[in-house]
Amino acid sequence: MSVTTPASAVTPPGYSDTKDDQLKRLRRIEGQIRGIARMVENDAYCIDVLTQVSAATRALQAVSVNLLEEHIAHCVVDAARESDEAAAAKVGEVTAAVTRLLRS
Amino acid sequence: MSVTTPASAVTPPGYSDTKDDQLKRLRRIEGQIRGIARMVENDAYCIDVLTQVSAATRALQAVSVNLLEEHIAHCVVDAARESDEAAAAKVGEVTAAVTRLLRS
Amino acid sequence: MSVTTPASAVTPPGYSDTKDDQLKRLRRIEGQIRGIARMVENDAYCIDVLTQVSAATRALQAVSVNLLEEHIAHCVVDAARESDEAAAAKVGEVTAAVTRLLRS
Amino acid sequence: MSVTTPASAVTPPGYSDTKDDQLKRLRRIEGQIRGIARMVENDAYCIDVLTQVSAATRALQAVSVNLLEEHIAHCVVDAARESDEAAAAKVGEVTAAVTRLLRS
Repeated sequence: MSVTTPASAVTPPGYSDTKDDQLKRLRRIEGQIRGIARMVENDAYCIDVLTQVSAATRALQAVSVNLLEEHIAHCVVDAARESDEAAAAKVGEVTAAVTRLLRS
Repeated sequence: MSVTTPASAVTPPGYSDTKDDQLKRLRRIEGQIRGIARMVENDAYCIDVLTQVSAATRALQAVSVNLLEEHIAHCVVDAARESDEAAAAKVGEVTAAVTRLLRS
Repeated sequence: MSVTTPASAVTPPGYSDTKDDQLKRLRRIEGQIRGIARMVENDAYCIDVLTQVSAATRALQAVSVNLLEEHIAHCVVDAARESDEAAAAKVGEVTAAVTRLLRS
Repeated sequence: MSVTTPASAVTPPGYSDTKDDQLKRLRRIEGQIRGIARMVENDAYCIDVLTQVSAATRALQAVSVNLLEEHIAHCVVDAARESDEAAAAKVGEVTAAVTRLLRS
């Protein structure tokens, strides 16, 4: 997993205030995935497995929306106050992230 | 995680032939989620975290499409050969599963 | 818009029984799109336009789910009763269609 | 189609500079929907209709991403420069719009 922005080492990320919540959600999703693997091991019915995969996918999407919200609320807003160039760069980045989200 | 179909205990599920592949994919996704949690712990840049969440979401969607394919190839096809009623029940179930997938 | 299957000329499509419903839904979506264009012409607020675009997208997804249901209920079920080869071909086609749906 | 923001009457919307492009895209999508209705009228094969519905859905999502980009680039950036309260209101609105997009 590459880190494209050295800035991450110096500025706190947009999700700093909600970091514990994000980690809790991710641990829960990890548990959901393990639960799905157990269902597959136990030959659970396809549709029941699919229902749980959809639930985990939805939980991941919720993480994305949360991260995006914190990113806009902090990083984009800060960039807007810094300069037109900084704002434009962040807007381009957010748009690309939303496009990836919609395609996932 | 509720199992709605007692049938799962008796008939092998549609994904029987690809069970090991499904488990391998799920283990890999579990690792992706753990990697994302580590990124958040290390204050990685929001957009980099979002990129990895999108990748994990896409991997989960691939599991869904695979399970769905195996389900139609085996369970729906078998039901079609059994009776009109059995077929109709499976078609309704698959449609509901696709709807959940599209909403996730 | 290419038609890949000459069969469409001879066998009625899976949605034959619900053709009028499908057409009604499509006319309604066409009206929604025209309404969105009017909003843009009148400089409506971005978020209000986005809300209507999401509604139209959801309506299109509903058309897809309906077509898919009819297709599985008729074309896939018929193919299952015809032969293993016919079934396998239809299952592959349906899976590809669901993948396109999830990516859209 | 309700307009929730009286502001739309006074301030130009975020998409002002790309209004003609947005309208062109919407006209093209309207044509796609009409083409799909024609396919259904002519009993085109289900999978071919589904392929075109997915294409139209993707085109609508592209309109959404564009509107969202313009909205962030203009309305959110302007709000960020105005005040913390104005910024917070816009961020909440954008997040809700992205959630609707992901659910559509």
